[in-house]
Amino acid sequence: MFIAMNRFKVIKGEEKAFEKVWLSRDTHLESVPGFIEFHLLRGPEQDDHTLYSSHSVWTNQAAFTAWTQSEAFRAAHRTAGDNKPLYLGHPQFEGFEVLQTVHGAARSARPAAE
Amino acid sequence: MFIAMNRFKVIKGEEKAFEKVWLSRDTHLESVPGFIEFHLLRGPEQDDHTLYSSHSVWTNQAAFTAWTQSEAFRAAHRTAGDNKPLYLGHPQFEGFEVLQTVHGAARSARPAAE
Repeated sequence: MFIAMNRFKVIKGEEKAFEKVWLSRDTHLESVPGFIEFHLLRGPEQDDHTLYSSHSVWTNQAAFTAWTQSEAFRAAHRTAGDNKPLYLGHPQFEGFEVLQTVHGAARSARPAAE
Repeated sequence: MFIAMNRFKVIKGEEKAFEKVWLSRDTHLESVPGFIEFHLLRGPEQDDHTLYSSHSVWTNQAAFTAWTQSEAFRAAHRTAGDNKPLYLGHPQFEGFEVLQTVHGAARSARPAAE
């Protein structure tokens, strides 16, 4: 498995606006080959920003790379430039290979969507 | 859901030793209340280190906090001080609240363990 993360330093006071952009978008992801799961994550608050991370899980890195070159990717990012700046600088991309997975008993209790 | 991450800057040349410590340990996690899933992730290489991230998923932040105060946590971390330094500085902790989850068609094809 491969996990692609983008870290966003969201400007203080713009958190709700940033979340609204993400939560109201059409992800165009559901039917993309090799796409497993997406999470939008809100992280710790810092002095001048709140850290957010978008976090997508893929069967492998090749599936992620193919998506970034697809029409579905362009469609999902088409409106991104229309918003006023909500975060500092550029998002920081980090890709991770999954080396080990351990499942817990609470896994079966995980809701299908939230 | 809540995701707890620790970021490790692993010294160049110590990657295999670092992975061995993690992959050979007893996690003591499977039966911890509220524990959903753990991943060990290998991230991008930088000039003087390779980024790794340990990444555990919980039903909520309270379940994670309770685990850090438990005997299972102490047992899992008891031997951590016996190893020679494999990473630069201290691990950097970041906790994230899951705001949105999108599931893909490839999810059902995900192996139970890898």
